[in-house]
Amino acid sequence: MPGLRVALAQINPTVGDLVGNAELIVERSHEALRAGAHVVVFPEMVLTGYPVEDLALRLTFGRASRRAVDGLARRLASAGCGEMLVYVGYLDRDDAGPRNAVAALWRGAVVARQFKHHLPNYSVFDEHRHFRPGDTVEVLRLHGVDIGLAICQDLWEDGGPITALAAAGVDLVVSPNASPYERSKADARMAVVGRRATEAGAPLVYTNLVGGQDDLVFDGGSIVVAADGSVVARAPQFAEHLLVVDHELTPGGYTAEGRFAGLRVRRRALVGQPVAELGPIVEPTVAEPLSTDGEVWSALVLGLRDYVRKNGFRTVVLGLSGGIDSAVTAAIAADALGGDAVFGVAMPSRYSSEHSVSDAAELARRIGCDFRVEPVADLVRVLVDQLKLAGTGVAEENIQARVRGMLLMALSNLDGHLVLATGNKTELAVGYSTIYGDAVGGFAPIKDVFKTHVWQLARWRNAEASKNGQVPPIPENSISKPPSAELRPGQLDSDALPDYALLDDILDAYVESDRGQADLLAAGFTPEMIDRVVRMVDRAEYKRRQYPPGTRITFKAFGRDRRLPISNRWSETGMTSPGAPA
Amino acid sequence: MPGLRVALAQINPTVGDLVGNAELIVERSHEALRAGAHVVVFPEMVLTGYPVEDLALRLTFGRASRRAVDGLARRLASAGCGEMLVYVGYLDRDDAGPRNAVAALWRGAVVARQFKHHLPNYSVFDEHRHFRPGDTVEVLRLHGVDIGLAICQDLWEDGGPITALAAAGVDLVVSPNASPYERSKADARMAVVGRRATEAGAPLVYTNLVGGQDDLVFDGGSIVVAADGSVVARAPQFAEHLLVVDHELTPGGYTAEGRFAGLRVRRRALVGQPVAELGPIVEPTVAEPLSTDGEVWSALVLGLRDYVRKNGFRTVVLGLSGGIDSAVTAAIAADALGGDAVFGVAMPSRYSSEHSVSDAAELARRIGCDFRVEPVADLVRVLVDQLKLAGTGVAEENIQARVRGMLLMALSNLDGHLVLATGNKTELAVGYSTIYGDAVGGFAPIKDVFKTHVWQLARWRNAEASKNGQVPPIPENSISKPPSAELRPGQLDSDALPDYALLDDILDAYVESDRGQADLLAAGFTPEMIDRVVRMVDRAEYKRRQYPPGTRITFKAFGRDRRLPISNRWSETGMTSPGAPA
Repeated sequence: MPGLRVALAQINPTVGDLVGNAELIVERSHEALRAGAHVVVFPEMVLTGYPVEDLALRLTFGRASRRAVDGLARRLASAGCGEMLVYVGYLDRDDAGPRNAVAALWRGAVVARQFKHHLPNYSVFDEHRHFRPGDTVEVLRLHGVDIGLAICQDLWEDGGPITALAAAGVDLVVSPNASPYERSKADARMAVVGRRATEAGAPLVYTNLVGGQDDLVFDGGSIVVAADGSVVARAPQFAEHLLVVDHELTPGGYTAEGRFAGLRVRRRALVGQPVAELGPIVEPTVAEPLSTDGEVWSALVLGLRDYVRKNGFRTVVLGLSGGIDSAVTAAIAADALGGDAVFGVAMPSRYSSEHSVSDAAELARRIGCDFRVEPVADLVRVLVDQLKLAGTGVAEENIQARVRGMLLMALSNLDGHLVLATGNKTELAVGYSTIYGDAVGGFAPIKDVFKTHVWQLARWRNAEASKNGQVPPIPENSISKPPSAELRPGQLDSDALPDYALLDDILDAYVESDRGQADLLAAGFTPEMIDRVVRMVDRAEYKRRQYPPGTRITFKAFGRDRRLPISNRWSETGMTSPGAPA
Repeated sequence: MPGLRVALAQINPTVGDLVGNAELIVERSHEALRAGAHVVVFPEMVLTGYPVEDLALRLTFGRASRRAVDGLARRLASAGCGEMLVYVGYLDRDDAGPRNAVAALWRGAVVARQFKHHLPNYSVFDEHRHFRPGDTVEVLRLHGVDIGLAICQDLWEDGGPITALAAAGVDLVVSPNASPYERSKADARMAVVGRRATEAGAPLVYTNLVGGQDDLVFDGGSIVVAADGSVVARAPQFAEHLLVVDHELTPGGYTAEGRFAGLRVRRRALVGQPVAELGPIVEPTVAEPLSTDGEVWSALVLGLRDYVRKNGFRTVVLGLSGGIDSAVTAAIAADALGGDAVFGVAMPSRYSSEHSVSDAAELARRIGCDFRVEPVADLVRVLVDQLKLAGTGVAEENIQARVRGMLLMALSNLDGHLVLATGNKTELAVGYSTIYGDAVGGFAPIKDVFKTHVWQLARWRNAEASKNGQVPPIPENSISKPPSAELRPGQLDSDALPDYALLDDILDAYVESDRGQADLLAAGFTPEMIDRVVRMVDRAEYKRRQYPPGTRITFKAFGRDRRLPISNRWSETGMTSPGAPA
């Protein structure tokens, strides 16, 4: 059968590491060559990593990236990969400014460069700040097959490159992407890819980035769809993968150039001669999608692993309180780095329950992490006495949390561990945490997971272990006991907060869905409860800004993708709500 | 003489406080009425405050703002201001999405709405994220005078509203602005305003916002220029002000409507009858510009005052080390809030010099602030002993800084003070600070002031005091002694850092001007020094993200307006430079 063998190289680059990323690209191109591929498609901005944020604005970085892509073309050719057409995302820079670009490398040179046309500027994206849009679409003929290109957002918005390619005619569309993970986004992505293939009237090859980058995690899950939108192949999520697919194609012999849908379409013929016979057909892989909880867990594990690794750490340290948050955080860390890279510290105070240390010890035993006990009672007493804080409430309670934070940072300074903060999204939303205390850390793995979801993930992870005949990592007692910060005798979270199930429902409506007061009332929440929760959320903005990064798994995480004024008196409930930075 | 009396209402709104801001607008409109004004021009988004950041995306906030502007029109009319034409910036929202809008209020109604056309999306601006651009320009005829409107960035970019107004014909242009302060920006602003007046062939009235908002401070300095670009009047900087100017105008009787420069120009006649005689001419105020250091000092004072006030605080607490940074921070705080709202704490450790406490006490005496001494030696010893940190270097040194941070936070929790961090921009740039230690605080007044500039400001402030027969606030000894963190015996900053004059020169080139290695070499810095400084800066990104806000005075402050990846291996010096989040 005539056609093309196309490889999708779903790889995990590191932002700014032009040398290391080029190395990865050469390695994977070799693998594609051995598999007999004619075309290899790498993700968006794979050579620089994504997102480069304001590095895009640095003239010298843009030049370095351009030089790197030229060097990569030569290197691929001298390594025997020159006959393959290799699509590589990178940062370009021309007189108009920085560009989110894809280069087509062939026989030692860049044979085409295309700049992203639609620049997303919402949620975590700031591409209007960082790039100038392109207005040209490059079609390359390889073995008689006309291959068009569309970069990430160019698939998501109507009009633009796909419309132009559909009008001008093309046999195959390749699309490099850097699409961050969000819960249940895979379905939306699949629908878009299918629709654009149909629109273009050609198979579409969608390569996605994989790996963690600060708050973001890219989930891979690259896809190939046929011209009718049906799925042909799918790569696994959260892992590097080379997906190889044979396209049986009847070249259409398109020649139309010029302006289509407001864009300029250019064509260049590389090899006219069709591939006579692809040889033994590669059976396309169609990876099974993960369960919803499995997907989230994998995102959290990969996000943590890459944050640690890409910042030059090997080990992590965290406080183990015997509660659910630190238990789940530790289990994620053990899955990400291995139990022996995890250092747990129980730091009981005079108010800590007996089980706080025993549950922590049991967790440590199960996940195989290092465990030590550092009582904080004496340290706290000295501070409370000098400042005469006994009986002062919050001022006294916070000392415990802050001594613990200081203790973890001292261990980090001593042994080079990264400190993990164990707060969840519910706490973070309502400000139920101590700044410079339990908020201390370089990374907060579950900062985007609501409390009720933390419990759900714990049960899911334990069930997975049982299913595979392993010891469930999280002690049942940590899951079932009533949550408490244990900062004063008999304290329970429910003293200060609404029931977590109710609280998370309101937060989901107010934060994730941006619902207003009328909608919240219509959903059945009482005015008092709405007012109470909304005030807490509005006042916690300062604390959230000081919080360390953590993997983003939902539509609206705090941090990078919600930018709110600190000094702000507007509140959904109609009351002015001054912030409280201390 | 026929013409119009125009008032520029340079006021200080609070973000989100729709009720309070409307109140300010009514008060100032009354004042304008008493002054005999026909037109009052308020700043950009004065009704909501600026910038509202992602509040712009909240449907309910946009609706509340629309309701507020309608209510304001009615209220102005019932307060007797209905015959004045009042231009008020607000957040609008229509089917296309949120809009950066200006409403013209007259006789109890909104008689025109115009949406900003050019949306800035660089530096601190994210307007492509928050607003949809407008494509219509509204010209209103009042007393025969045709008044056109251009909103902030619409003046800065070529093409757009000014070009359209010039083509269609207009007698006067009014421009509401929210232009943040930057060192020496006033000249650039003046040049732009003059050029646009010339282009429009009409006088231009430029009202700027005043006041602090998180990292930003708006400096006011509203301007009126004649049709030839010459300055007619200027309001003072950093203070609320109502600037009243008489325009002698010969109405041109323009009638052209339709499309000009890609925009739609609409006209509406409110009152055709010219003002026969303006009465006694108002002598226009032309405020003297401040000196460069006076301008910076005023920005720092206003930024701090408004951060404290707008977040519901009254008092501040800070550590006084006897050094220059805490002395200057305290002096700014005393100027902003009065000495009796400032609480200074000396926290000597076993390594602190004698003069650290005596210089701090002298400063406190001079600025009239509260002063207490809280030795930290005992607290530090208990922690160092339990964790066996003696002789461990950084791990031990950091304990001192962290105990101090904890102590200040305890005082904040007890008495409701806002904690001020005293770090300067040089320290912040190179990461020469302890996270959760001296970086603790809700606001960092001098975080955008390089170390050499801190000294310069201290000398300037002292000289000002002497000039006015007051006691110079900053003890000479704090200015002249060699800087030291005093975290180990005999430690000096110069042990760890290059000479500050050299360091600040490199930082200015690398950070403010985004120079690359070749430029730095050409400027005469040695490769070793460039490498040393660039590595420090690249590695400090995580610490900078955790730093509290502080007034932005230069082109590139850290924080809001430099967005860099934490995990990043690219370095200007060509070496990969892993970040170090702990």
